[in-house]
Amino acid sequence: MDKYRFTYQDIHRTVRDLARRIVAAGYETDVIVAIGSGGFIPARMLRTFINKPILAVGIAYYDQHNQPTANPRKVQWIEEAERQLKGKRILLVDEVDDSRVTLEYCVRELLAHHPASIAVAVLHNKLKEKRGAMPPEVAMYLSGLDIDDKWVAYPWDAQDIDEHDRAAAADKA
Amino acid sequence: MDKYRFTYQDIHRTVRDLARRIVAAGYETDVIVAIGSGGFIPARMLRTFINKPILAVGIAYYDQHNQPTANPRKVQWIEEAERQLKGKRILLVDEVDDSRVTLEYCVRELLAHHPASIAVAVLHNKLKEKRGAMPPEVAMYLSGLDIDDKWVAYPWDAQDIDEHDRAAAADKA
Repeated sequence: MDKYRFTYQDIHRTVRDLARRIVAAGYETDVIVAIGSGGFIPARMLRTFINKPILAVGIAYYDQHNQPTANPRKVQWIEEAERQLKGKRILLVDEVDDSRVTLEYCVRELLAHHPASIAVAVLHNKLKEKRGAMPPEVAMYLSGLDIDDKWVAYPWDAQDIDEHDRAAAADKA
Repeated sequence: MDKYRFTYQDIHRTVRDLARRIVAAGYETDVIVAIGSGGFIPARMLRTFINKPILAVGIAYYDQHNQPTANPRKVQWIEEAERQLKGKRILLVDEVDDSRVTLEYCVRELLAHHPASIAVAVLHNKLKEKRGAMPPEVAMYLSGLDIDDKWVAYPWDAQDIDEHDRAAAADKA
């Protein structure tokens, strides 16, 4: 396989599994923070199993002049809400841990608001050398699946979901 | 049928159809605003077809003391980002237009920031008497599907996605 191909059903089951592990680990989430836009779908699925409010943050790798940048930049943060983060147990959610740069950036930004704890859950963790590091303050790091460093075709990126599902079924056959 | 049951694939196709209609209508989106948490999944799907940044807003119907309220309250807004809304063409996205109260509230809040235009897209519009009204400033209102006033079982609310899909298939049979 040149790439991974996941269906919505695969992702939904992965999220359920993640939720069970988070609960089994005794981590009591107060607030889910979704990294947009990749974290939106996993975070919303997760809320079915861990029924807590979701706050969204937006991170971009382009500057005000639409030029690509190497480092993440906040395009949306949770100004009003971040005062509510103090003393809270945060569950930070994203789709894929690739270079780890976005996750490190978000964790550090969140730590500045003195939460009680931060746990990180991603659908998929690419097994590769990471440019970013998980800060030691992170109480728990969970990936639904550790995967090789290949392209991931997520269902929400499909132009044609039926074609995507057929290809995913063929991969599994 | 006592309720509607949609699969992820149903929703994905509905979003593609909505995107085509938005483009066909000549509406050129600058920024997608997702109403959380219901709008997160449709908005992220939509971005596959209309590749623009997503900003998220959070609306709740409970107060600071966790007591239910009749009127929407902002739990997350786009403070930093809202300065960027001036002169922009906004596409506001949510899952369902039920009472229309949330949509009216969000449109009015967004209008205060002087966008060039606002279009509204929802997956499903319940055909019923609405407590909220669509402000006349809304340039376009699109629903993926007009439905009766019944309960809607969305796939992301499923505890067991396979069971949900089996039930949805049985409904269609």
